[in-house]
Amino acid sequence: VTIITLTTDFGAADGYVGAMKGVILGITPGATLVDISHDVAAHDVRGGAFVLKTASPYFAAGTIHIAVIDPGVGSERRALAVQTPRATFIGPDNGVLSWALAREDGLTIVHLDRPAYWLDPISSTFHGRDVFAPAAAHLARGVGIAELGTVVDDLIRLPLPRPRCDESGTLHSEVIYIDRFGNLVTGIEIEPGDGPAVCRVTNLPDGAPVVNFSSLARIDILGRRIEGVVHSYSDVNPGELLALAGSSGHLEVAVRNGNAASALEAQAGAPVRVIWPA
Amino acid sequence: VTIITLTTDFGAADGYVGAMKGVILGITPGATLVDISHDVAAHDVRGGAFVLKTASPYFAAGTIHIAVIDPGVGSERRALAVQTPRATFIGPDNGVLSWALAREDGLTIVHLDRPAYWLDPISSTFHGRDVFAPAAAHLARGVGIAELGTVVDDLIRLPLPRPRCDESGTLHSEVIYIDRFGNLVTGIEIEPGDGPAVCRVTNLPDGAPVVNFSSLARIDILGRRIEGVVHSYSDVNPGELLALAGSSGHLEVAVRNGNAASALEAQAGAPVRVIWPA
Amino acid sequence: VTIITLTTDFGAADGYVGAMKGVILGITPGATLVDISHDVAAHDVRGGAFVLKTASPYFAAGTIHIAVIDPGVGSERRALAVQTPRATFIGPDNGVLSWALAREDGLTIVHLDRPAYWLDPISSTFHGRDVFAPAAAHLARGVGIAELGTVVDDLIRLPLPRPRCDESGTLHSEVIYIDRFGNLVTGIEIEPGDGPAVCRVTNLPDGAPVVNFSSLARIDILGRRIEGVVHSYSDVNPGELLALAGSSGHLEVAVRNGNAASALEAQAGAPVRVIWPA
Repeated sequence: VTIITLTTDFGAADGYVGAMKGVILGITPGATLVDISHDVAAHDVRGGAFVLKTASPYFAAGTIHIAVIDPGVGSERRALAVQTPRATFIGPDNGVLSWALAREDGLTIVHLDRPAYWLDPISSTFHGRDVFAPAAAHLARGVGIAELGTVVDDLIRLPLPRPRCDESGTLHSEVIYIDRFGNLVTGIEIEPGDGPAVCRVTNLPDGAPVVNFSSLARIDILGRRIEGVVHSYSDVNPGELLALAGSSGHLEVAVRNGNAASALEAQAGAPVRVIWPA
Repeated sequence: VTIITLTTDFGAADGYVGAMKGVILGITPGATLVDISHDVAAHDVRGGAFVLKTASPYFAAGTIHIAVIDPGVGSERRALAVQTPRATFIGPDNGVLSWALAREDGLTIVHLDRPAYWLDPISSTFHGRDVFAPAAAHLARGVGIAELGTVVDDLIRLPLPRPRCDESGTLHSEVIYIDRFGNLVTGIEIEPGDGPAVCRVTNLPDGAPVVNFSSLARIDILGRRIEGVVHSYSDVNPGELLALAGSSGHLEVAVRNGNAASALEAQAGAPVRVIWPA
Repeated sequence: VTIITLTTDFGAADGYVGAMKGVILGITPGATLVDISHDVAAHDVRGGAFVLKTASPYFAAGTIHIAVIDPGVGSERRALAVQTPRATFIGPDNGVLSWALAREDGLTIVHLDRPAYWLDPISSTFHGRDVFAPAAAHLARGVGIAELGTVVDDLIRLPLPRPRCDESGTLHSEVIYIDRFGNLVTGIEIEPGDGPAVCRVTNLPDGAPVVNFSSLARIDILGRRIEGVVHSYSDVNPGELLALAGSSGHLEVAVRNGNAASALEAQAGAPVRVIWPA
């Protein structure tokens, strides 16, 4: 059974997602449909790219991911299907797919330009229903990706959020996503390192020196200083600000049992600095 | 596999929809359940009718659609199942089903008055769970619609939004729905006409002259004038107001990459006029 | 086909629920997934417990319910699976499962302490994805509950909301939940009694005298008095305050076609008194 996931900014109120699912199930009745998100902020391509990047790795091989944050619908922007050795990603060529694809090799990229695989008539405002949903459904029922359109060799890639390390060793990044709990996800990717209190930054620019992210680091954000990186929320008292390795693999700033975005009046783009003790 | 869709004003927070799905799957374990919307505004029968009308045509033949926007639950209002040659619609007899049924002939209408097909006990406040969900599930497992209750010959129909054409040729309508993007859906239904810049209004009252809706038309709404109808959002600059044929087949007023409802402080019912150049 | 339900405070925006579903379907591809709620208020263990208690009884025997409202994630709080003769409940040991289990006997309680059934690596902030989803999926594909960890003999139970009856016969309770319509669910559980206008209070403390809840009772809440308990919303005029037996089996205060929480500026915890006529 093929899984088809959906990530959109369509919201839950208007029936747009329901129409997409009706189209898919009409073409491939047995598909398993899974919602990743329909509450990406309207027109927020970066937000959709982040959500797709964090959720898609948890799906089985062969899953088809549709992502439609598509402010350019009806323009000349291309509709794409991109196959990796592990999954297929379908959506507009505006970068929404690109973070999920950033570490993938061996891409087959297809411009979905064959009207035989669109709904007829096609609207100029809702290609989620009229182009992307049918493409996913045809793939799920066994149509080869190259049947759906013209193979091309490029797609638009959003710049990856990468921290910058200055001459004094301070790491500079920013808030790239704020979740439902008000947790502030930064652009610093970390993974556990050798010691219990050491993390390794994994997304420094190529050629930058390795940075170990110890529990002794200090995080400066919006005029507040956080001393050290903790393991879990419960390492601080309720209501206190903290920093930890979030579930997405990014450094996150949070308030235990609270909302860091509210507490700090933070928005995406807020600068974050990591300073090591002298 | 039968598809059962759900359209309600129950929201996503309280578990009401989950209880309905539990009931359905208990009766017909193999059903495919699809949410159309659970965020219809509370008690907004017209909003539910619009969402059901726009999404339901995209589902395969044989689909069962449940729609529960039901402020009269527990009163004498009837519970109905309505079968068309293509689908079945289940919900309270308050008009919520009627727009989806407006162009359907050969209706079988059944008053769901047979307690054997209700949950026992039945509440007086939640017939979505206790009456409508079981009715859909029994249909899906093969029970004939006439088994579920008494065949009747009428249902309550909401007036269809129809534009009016005055003696000067000006078309009068209103905003009938506002979507998550702040797009203003008007009561004017249009479809592509003969020329590239011509649409045909398809829901004028019977006997009215045919109106072609050219790109030269001017739309007046809430003190703003829009010159011409465009093909897609990208035909204007970001932040500009525009009018186009929306994905539901209705004339819509939108702001490119923005929110027309906020920009115009528009609400459902706001008057819209279409004026042809002299 | 096993049904797995999900109740969380993860919201619909961030893809957290999608990741959980990806994990589940990767382990047990055929599972039927049903959302009960993902909009429990952030960190609101009691709200989650109430939603799970009200929705879970409507699912078929054998259903697996995951409930993740988990402010203590990453701390020493235990992860549990609890099997009853009818269903299995999985979640953190903070009380979120306890109201659904309150009337169940013959519980098998397992501490999910076997890393072989967790994701690897495991995060310290998202056990919904890394511990609870895999546990449910392994159960669904046939692993015995005792395989998943150590059998224990206790779990944390939230106090059940119980009304108190004072010497004058007045019943004291409070608002324990507010739903999407602004209906105020009280801690008084009632069921239909012998007469048409009589209900029986079913959750008085052990040993308390039986209280019949007649339509002659008066309900005092936030300075307003409601005369009598009605059968359905339609027994009063639109906009009027009323009390009735809600679909969850609790006494509810509502406004017909309106929002009682807004009208009374009510919050959870607001006191409610029921007074019998002299």
